[in-house]
Parts: sequence; structure tokens; C-alpha cells
Amino acid sequence: MSNSKTKIFEQSKICWLINKTSEAWIDLAISNPMEILLDHAHCERKAAGVALQLMFRYVSEPGLSEVLSPLAREELEHFERVLSLLNARGKKLQKLASPPYGAILAKNICKEEPLRMLDSFLVAGLIEARSHERMKLLSIHSPDMALRKLYGDLLKSEARHFGIYWQLAAERFDRDLLTSRLEELAKVESDALLEMHHLPRMHS
Amino acid sequence: MSNSKTKIFEQSKICWLINKTSEAWIDLAISNPMEILLDHAHCERKAAGVALQLMFRYVSEPGLSEVLSPLAREELEHFERVLSLLNARGKKLQKLASPPYGAILAKNICKEEPLRMLDSFLVAGLIEARSHERMKLLSIHSPDMALRKLYGDLLKSEARHFGIYWQLAAERFDRDLLTSRLEELAKVESDALLEMHHLPRMHS
Repeated sequence: MSNSKTKIFEQSKICWLINKTSEAWIDLAISNPMEILLDHAHCERKAAGVALQLMFRYVSEPGLSEVLSPLAREELEHFERVLSLLNARGKKLQKLASPPYGAILAKNICKEEPLRMLDSFLVAGLIEARSHERMKLLSIHSPDMALRKLYGDLLKSEARHFGIYWQLAAERFDRDLLTSRLEELAKVESDALLEMHHLPRMHS
Repeated sequence: MSNSKTKIFEQSKICWLINKTSEAWIDLAISNPMEILLDHAHCERKAAGVALQLMFRYVSEPGLSEVLSPLAREELEHFERVLSLLNARGKKLQKLASPPYGAILAKNICKEEPLRMLDSFLVAGLIEARSHERMKLLSIHSPDMALRKLYGDLLKSEARHFGIYWQLAAERFDRDLLTSRLEELAKVESDALLEMHHLPRMHS
């Protein structure tokens, strides 16, 4: 099997998400399409910020900027596409109160290196994986055809993004450590969503 | 005159740089081409960071993200192009001690809004303007044809970048305030380069 095929095969066996998104979230999301879209703009912006932050923190890490810079650019492209649809519908970019999801995950990132790097990759991957799952749901269930198409288009790259974070981790850390740490953080991620946040957000 | 032509005409009258780069800097730079190239990679990365930081700080500011997000993407594209040439020459991205230039400019940004926003635009524009001037010099004087072409290609967008920062400021602030503040900050910028830093850097 070629090297890139092995990588894809390996990734297909990785379990990022322990629980599936509830029907209650789908109902909340499709009843508040513009608020979800606005929140999604912020998610893309923040995802670019995470990639850039990692590039800055680990500036001398070989092979890191080479993959994170194009990833950040792609997140910004998505951000612009979402922003453009928001503007076309008369909505402006504005602050939104965040659900506790991101802060809970950030709090669980190990404070010391090299585990901080591993956890940062895994947490970024988990957020991408959840975004991907939910964008897929929106691309199926949204009654608004323009939104359905938007989410459908964007989610294709999101799948690649969590693959990139997996790869960054797999190239640098022992496989057993990696899988056991992913298991722990995936539990944190799924628990953070167990009690659905009352506001309509991508990660409520 | 059409609106966009007026804008270009207005910009052509703006004096960003008070002094010209010295011949001593050109000599230092062309004698240390790979260190300058590495430093330039960092400059592009940091310029993307500045644009993203402003997008994050002023997230609800109408019309800001719409121009800063594509600008950040372009800086990242440049970063990748420089990084790729570094890698092709067997050099890795690694930390470099910074000259005092950036810190001197940052220290002169007003701490209180709305002047903080104005100063942030002007300082970002000044750095872009100086980078543009020096990249032009490298595109003329570098004995290495590949570097000459690289700087020549990149500097075309850099000119647009300081125009964008000017426009962002001009749309939000009184013209007299804008020009007098630019005059003050341009003085800080030129003074920061009067005594050339001993290390070969884009902003030595």
C-alpha cells in the first residue's frame, strides 16, 4: 500500500467523536439559521487563529508552518465566504457569546511541553471533527437551499483539516500515547456537549 | 474623477517614509541574502498575524474583516513562497533575534481607543511601506536572480497593502488627525532606522 494510502487508511480507523450530535441540536440549529451562520463565521475565523497561533508558538518546528499556513488560508477563505453570505442577507459580523465548549477543551490542554503540543493538535482536530459532523447535518437538514449548499461545500475541506492535525501529531508522537490521549480528550469533547447549551451555536 | 481613481490619487500624495534606506543597509542585506530571506519569511508571517489580530480585536467593526482577511491570506501565501525557497536551499525556518524596530513602533501606538485603532492601521501601513521600499531595493540590487525575482513579485502586493491600511484609516478618521498622526509615527519609524541595527534584517 502506498504511503499516502496507508495514512488515509489509518485515519479512517481513528475515532474522533465519541457521541453523535443530538436531534435537539439539529432542531435548535435549523430554527436559528442566521445565528448559526454568524457563529460559523466566528468558528472559521477562530480556526485560522488557532493555526496561526501554533505556527507562532512552534516557529522552529520543522514541517509545521508548511501545512498550517495553507490550512489557515483555507479557513480564512471559508470565513470570507460565510461573511459574504451574511452580508448578502443584511447581517453584519458582530460578537456572539460563546458556549463553554472551547474553554472546556482549552482547559484540558496539558500546560507542559511536549504534551502541550500533542494536546493542541488533538483539540484542534476534535473541534474540526465536530464542526465537520455538524456542517454535514446542516447540509442535509437545513430547509434553506443556499445554506445547505454552503455547508456542503465547506465540509469537504473540514474533513481534510482534522486529518492534518492527526498527521501533525502522528509524525511527532508515539502511537500509543497518541491514541490514549485522543481517547481522553474525545471524552472531554463529548462530555462538553452532553448538556446542550441553550444558545444556538455550532458547538452548543 | 471616479471614486477609486480619487482614492489612488489621494494615496499617491501620502508620505509614508520620511527617509530613504541607506546604502549601508543595502550592502548588509545583499551580503547576507539567506538571513534576510529567513527574516523576510518571519515578516510575512507576522504581517498575517497583525491583520488577524486586528480582525479579532475589532470583530464588530463594519467592513474591516472584509479587507483584512484577504490581506492576511495574501501575506500567508507570500510566507509560503519564501519558506519554499528557503527549504529548496536547504534552510529551515527558525527563530531570529528581532531588531528593535517593531517594538519601538508598537510602543508608540496610543493605548486608548479610538486612537489605538488609528495608530494600529498607520503602524501596520508604515511597516508595509518600509518592507515595500526595501524589497524593491533587493529586487534591483540582489546579485541572486532567483531572489531578485522573488522580491520583485512580492513587492507588487505590498504596495497594495499599505494602501489598504491607509484606506481603513481614511474611512474612519478625520483627515487632519490622520495626516498629523501619520507625520508623527512616520518620524518614529524613520528615527528607529537611523542607527542601523548590526544584524542583517529587513528592518535593521
